[in-house]
Amino acid sequence: MIRAVDVIRKKRDGVPLGDDEIDYFLKGCCSGDIPDYQTAAFLMATYFRGMNEKEVFSLTDSMVRSGKVVDLSGIKGTKVDKHSTGGVADTTTLVVCPLVASCGAPIAKMSGRGLGHTGGTLDKLEAIPGMKVSLTLDEFVNIVNSVGISIISQTDDLVPADKKLYSLRDVTATVDSIPLIASSVMSKKIAGGSDVIVLDVKVGKGAFMKDLKDAMTLAKMMVNIGETSGRRTVAVLTDMNQPLGRAIGNSLEVIEACEALKGRGPSELMEVCLALGSYMLILAGIAQSFDIASKLLQDALVSGRGMDKLKEMVKAQGGDINALEDYSLLPQAKIKYELKAQEDFYISELDAEKLGLCAMKLGAGRAKKEDKIDLAVGMVINKKVGDYVSSGESVVTIHGNDERLVEEVLPEIKSAVKTSKQKVAKGKLIHAVVQRGLTQFL
Amino acid sequence: MIRAVDVIRKKRDGVPLGDDEIDYFLKGCCSGDIPDYQTAAFLMATYFRGMNEKEVFSLTDSMVRSGKVVDLSGIKGTKVDKHSTGGVADTTTLVVCPLVASCGAPIAKMSGRGLGHTGGTLDKLEAIPGMKVSLTLDEFVNIVNSVGISIISQTDDLVPADKKLYSLRDVTATVDSIPLIASSVMSKKIAGGSDVIVLDVKVGKGAFMKDLKDAMTLAKMMVNIGETSGRRTVAVLTDMNQPLGRAIGNSLEVIEACEALKGRGPSELMEVCLALGSYMLILAGIAQSFDIASKLLQDALVSGRGMDKLKEMVKAQGGDINALEDYSLLPQAKIKYELKAQEDFYISELDAEKLGLCAMKLGAGRAKKEDKIDLAVGMVINKKVGDYVSSGESVVTIHGNDERLVEEVLPEIKSAVKTSKQKVAKGKLIHAVVQRGLTQFL
Repeated sequence: MIRAVDVIRKKRDGVPLGDDEIDYFLKGCCSGDIPDYQTAAFLMATYFRGMNEKEVFSLTDSMVRSGKVVDLSGIKGTKVDKHSTGGVADTTTLVVCPLVASCGAPIAKMSGRGLGHTGGTLDKLEAIPGMKVSLTLDEFVNIVNSVGISIISQTDDLVPADKKLYSLRDVTATVDSIPLIASSVMSKKIAGGSDVIVLDVKVGKGAFMKDLKDAMTLAKMMVNIGETSGRRTVAVLTDMNQPLGRAIGNSLEVIEACEALKGRGPSELMEVCLALGSYMLILAGIAQSFDIASKLLQDALVSGRGMDKLKEMVKAQGGDINALEDYSLLPQAKIKYELKAQEDFYISELDAEKLGLCAMKLGAGRAKKEDKIDLAVGMVINKKVGDYVSSGESVVTIHGNDERLVEEVLPEIKSAVKTSKQKVAKGKLIHAVVQRGLTQFL
Repeated sequence: MIRAVDVIRKKRDGVPLGDDEIDYFLKGCCSGDIPDYQTAAFLMATYFRGMNEKEVFSLTDSMVRSGKVVDLSGIKGTKVDKHSTGGVADTTTLVVCPLVASCGAPIAKMSGRGLGHTGGTLDKLEAIPGMKVSLTLDEFVNIVNSVGISIISQTDDLVPADKKLYSLRDVTATVDSIPLIASSVMSKKIAGGSDVIVLDVKVGKGAFMKDLKDAMTLAKMMVNIGETSGRRTVAVLTDMNQPLGRAIGNSLEVIEACEALKGRGPSELMEVCLALGSYMLILAGIAQSFDIASKLLQDALVSGRGMDKLKEMVKAQGGDINALEDYSLLPQAKIKYELKAQEDFYISELDAEKLGLCAMKLGAGRAKKEDKIDLAVGMVINKKVGDYVSSGESVVTIHGNDERLVEEVLPEIKSAVKTSKQKVAKGKLIHAVVQRGLTQFL
């Protein structure tokens, strides 16, 4: 007979757990048969001891089975999903998913909300007037079949174990454990039902993974879980030292995504979108090489087919597509404050986490899951690392609805911007690509 | 404002905690303001990260303040307490405390019950017909004043925090953490109110501390807590690879204690009693050197004053002192089974933990705190490590009340006895003595 305290002790002592022990623990934790204090001790022991690949697959598998796997069999073709581990000024999903869908890969994506310094796709979509993100499974499948793409919120019965574990991790300082992150992400992606999963693993000061080694460990673990579960999986390690795009905040990121799909996107955002999109097309079997995939995506961009696809999806989900052309129809902030340079310099550093937190404090994000957000506020980064700034030029435009909050974050935003008199090189944007058994550093 | 999750995170990351943080956590855990799952995560983080001397003192101090410190001011003289970290065939308390009391050091001792493979003094005392161990504080103080010694159970308001923490540690695999053990033991000793604390830290296969290094760490930590709390404290590290005396089980250990006080005790038990007793007399200011203390104890033993003191205490607490002479008045087991040697050999090993667990399975001890015990059962070890055994001689006498249980433990007892054809040296019995700033290896 398996006992919870023995499973905790084994994990504490670094003895690998069997599938039966992990499944017993997970089921017990969800049913309440195992009290939360034993689960908390188990999570902390896992924080210290980690999990091997077999254990973390087993945990993910049990988590998937705690709820319902979404049945996407009604959708023709190889279904493609993507996931980001959380970035700042990172509206990748709203750019790359329409592009990929317009190339013929059906995208049935369940997305999340922002937390802490990172944004979430659902919040951004809700900045579009009328846009619905809570659809029934039938509506979801129908839209993917007719339009080729739909992005909705996770259903309640999608991995209930993750909700349970996450709420405990959140209050027991066990969020930043690589196997617990990997199983949380991958259980939701696998239960989401897609055939192909492309992971954008952020690395750097603004990411959960601060260094490349941890990001690589997480990437390899997630790819292994995906492939072992029969899903074609690739992870791309991308830089999150400075904000990826220029817009932080929900309305502002919708505008940035539209501009990107109209061919006016910031170069760094576009580079990451093209890389992720290319792997999505390759794994979906639509492109045979990275070059062919890139070409397909460029065509979709230049022809406007990507933008059309976004509009089709927004329309199908009840959103006002006029807002994608006339941005004044999106929520607008009352205050626009320009943070201007007092002298000439190069930008040497933009602390993504700090800027993300400032946007959160302005109201764009949540400190706690329950917090309400203000879709209009945030900021636009006018100058990125390596850019030259002349005295008087605006570095950041703050969009706020509360003068007090704007004043409060102003010194923090200033401290997030480091400058140099010397020319500064732009950093590497895509660090590595991880496939099963193959890691390619770029 | 201190938040529980931040305290957990600091401990997780190995950042030393402040007094205010530890006190906040301990109070919150006891009041229920901090939920058990956060305490469990904190305990597991402490298991991995340990605590420095300042932290563990702070924790102990907060634990002491969670209840009432026993007021022994009504007792004249320097009050002496002793504690053992738990042994097998270890009836030291019943021998050394009457001896020390008969030399003039008042002993007001609160004791515990047996758990797992180890015995407890209260259970042994209750084998004496009529003996009461639950007394009011007034009764306790009065007996110490008139007789010089009393041993009772801990009052309910003695360190309630320890009960709370222990019950969580028990089910979260965080019992064997040195700072948690040290704070648990010392909070109870300090709240017990005595001026002098002599600790018997067991080390070896039958002890909680399996190796000397861990035992030394624990000993130093406890001595530091005691001295910082203004109590004269010494720790003696004694061997628990084989059972200390010969009797395991409650009635049987009362008999062994009586025989010891009548001058017929097993040599190893007597050596440990004399060592502990000497430090008790020295710290109490009654003897100026180890030699003088030993001499006083020898006199108390040979003169029978120690035995008289035990009888006085038993009488004062309602026990039948006739049972200390006529052992048939103590609970008797129905079955006596002799485990006999099939050939000639030397005993090379007696696994104390295994033998303790066998006695527990016979009914002498508890697997869980709630279990009922059988005061009559247990075993007598007739041959110790280094002893020569001729074919046909009895190695162990099993005292049982249930034939099925006796048969069940028989192979386990056999496997606990290792033999050799070569002569085997007796191991060292007293490993070291730890005082503040002074460690003496023996």
